[in-house]
Amino acid sequence: MKIEMKHGAGGAAMEDFIKNEIVERIGGGKAEIGLEKLDDSCVVDGIVFTTDSYTVKPIFFAGGDIGKLAVSGTINDIYAIGGAAVAISSALIIEEGLEFDDFRRIMESMAKEAKKAGVAITTGDTKVVEKGSVDKIFINTAGIGKRHLKLDENFEVVEEYRKVKHRWLLDSNIEEGDKIIFTGSAGDHGAAILAARYEIESNVESDAQPLNRLMDVALEIGGVVAAKDPTRGGLANLLNEWREKSKIGFLIRERDIPIKDGTKAICELLGIDVLELANEGIYAMAVVPEKAEEILEAIKKLPEGRNAAIVGEARKEYEYAILETSVGGKRIIEAPIGSAVPRIC
Amino acid sequence: MKIEMKHGAGGAAMEDFIKNEIVERIGGGKAEIGLEKLDDSCVVDGIVFTTDSYTVKPIFFAGGDIGKLAVSGTINDIYAIGGAAVAISSALIIEEGLEFDDFRRIMESMAKEAKKAGVAITTGDTKVVEKGSVDKIFINTAGIGKRHLKLDENFEVVEEYRKVKHRWLLDSNIEEGDKIIFTGSAGDHGAAILAARYEIESNVESDAQPLNRLMDVALEIGGVVAAKDPTRGGLANLLNEWREKSKIGFLIRERDIPIKDGTKAICELLGIDVLELANEGIYAMAVVPEKAEEILEAIKKLPEGRNAAIVGEARKEYEYAILETSVGGKRIIEAPIGSAVPRIC
Repeated sequence: MKIEMKHGAGGAAMEDFIKNEIVERIGGGKAEIGLEKLDDSCVVDGIVFTTDSYTVKPIFFAGGDIGKLAVSGTINDIYAIGGAAVAISSALIIEEGLEFDDFRRIMESMAKEAKKAGVAITTGDTKVVEKGSVDKIFINTAGIGKRHLKLDENFEVVEEYRKVKHRWLLDSNIEEGDKIIFTGSAGDHGAAILAARYEIESNVESDAQPLNRLMDVALEIGGVVAAKDPTRGGLANLLNEWREKSKIGFLIRERDIPIKDGTKAICELLGIDVLELANEGIYAMAVVPEKAEEILEAIKKLPEGRNAAIVGEARKEYEYAILETSVGGKRIIEAPIGSAVPRIC
Repeated sequence: MKIEMKHGAGGAAMEDFIKNEIVERIGGGKAEIGLEKLDDSCVVDGIVFTTDSYTVKPIFFAGGDIGKLAVSGTINDIYAIGGAAVAISSALIIEEGLEFDDFRRIMESMAKEAKKAGVAITTGDTKVVEKGSVDKIFINTAGIGKRHLKLDENFEVVEEYRKVKHRWLLDSNIEEGDKIIFTGSAGDHGAAILAARYEIESNVESDAQPLNRLMDVALEIGGVVAAKDPTRGGLANLLNEWREKSKIGFLIRERDIPIKDGTKAICELLGIDVLELANEGIYAMAVVPEKAEEILEAIKKLPEGRNAAIVGEARKEYEYAILETSVGGKRIIEAPIGSAVPRIC
């Protein structure tokens, strides 16, 4: 039996593969939030710790490149669980023959995003392999962080309204009535990659960006229960991960989902569900209903949150994530089996 | 201008590339021991942090596999600077078509080494890419640690004999008279990879192994000033890194360097200098002369240190690392420009 593309595609096949073939074998070590949680970061001995390898194709695309993606993605994973980033690493696997100019652009892009987020790149590794052994350049960024200073205050606010399941922003924290905010428009990163790959004329740009400031603002208000960035498998997969871990359904209103025209056009052209397309610069956030409007208003003032919207809520009457379509019908938002777009990140 | 194999080969060309093209662009962030130190790990906000990507070819070899290598290598980098490992990550980039059986062997190998070293694998990432976009499987392991409990006591011992430059085990700490211990035989990992790659009949096995216990024992005695694992570029490159950072020369006695017959035979067959071959399970340690014999004796009692030997000392009368050959001559141990063996780790 051989490993297939679907095993890394961000959907149900990947989830099974990771649980049965990886976590089952290498997991089980002592941690406050460990590998088996499959959350955005782990927490061990008070340290928030996360890793991601980036294999995106092409390495340059509208709105970013592999370097911007690698830095933003790892920073966003740290903040998604309630951490504040302390430092990130940069481990490069470079294909022999890569142009120095391209390499320099990527390094400068990494430096710029890290600086924007106020995070230092403090350790690294560099490998060069023969032509054909890697596709241009793959980058791994691991990240470390500490507990976000505002996290306890955030949960004090949550507790005004209900008991908290866990005092980190975990996928399993969500309860009846929590409002779901998308902090930006759906699928822009995936659409930008598709446009680049299939040479589609489009004004869509990747949303890749660090979300540390946006999370600071939300935690300052309080009431955030969970946050997650919808990368591989998009928002469809994210909602199903939440559903499974929090054991609750969702009602999402299609008309409230922010979608850019350009992204919509690419989805229609290629017959892809926008909810299955990756983002790299938005969070889905679950927040207590009492604070949803206030958080929304605050993050909409930031450029990285200007398209944010409340798109639905957690509802225990549903077993699934349900989409109320623009024409009034209802359908189940299924976790994609494989991926609409391989090598998206 | 294009990136070439030599830019990742562990020698002088790689050092220039990393300094001028990478650190110059992405370094400079605040850290106690930062990227620009080019040491085995960084230290930031009290956390020891390191990363390594493993691209070894072939992925299975006598004495180990890419999984064993990835876990040992990162653990050893944490201990090399005076850290104690808290957790490691596992980020996998898998080529579509990899056999499940091979994948499982690698996972089990990672689990086994981590368990042996008492370190949990707490976070991970999994990517699958199309055939031809990566060579079978590449693994990144990042690691986090805290200051080793015995580190301060170790430096108290050092201070009985001389002032300490820095209270971590840095490449720049070494001074006149410090004894150099190789904790195992030279070049066995490189020789095992060469044997596998060129189908040479040999009994040489890779030395890949975690060295946490060995370092515990040495720090318990005290007097360790620096430690480093001689991976790419081997002991020749290691001594030149020490020379440059500590601004001191070395006298190394060829007759005292532990070398296995099998490794020597492969070096002679292929015309490779054993000092340029990688190890993945030994340290070169610089220790105050007063404690060298005691440390040697203690680590020789461990299976992972049974071949250890004192091979020379730091000598300011020399500008270079000098090898006193078995026949009584002297030659400069130069840093390799490129690599004797690409894809060694």
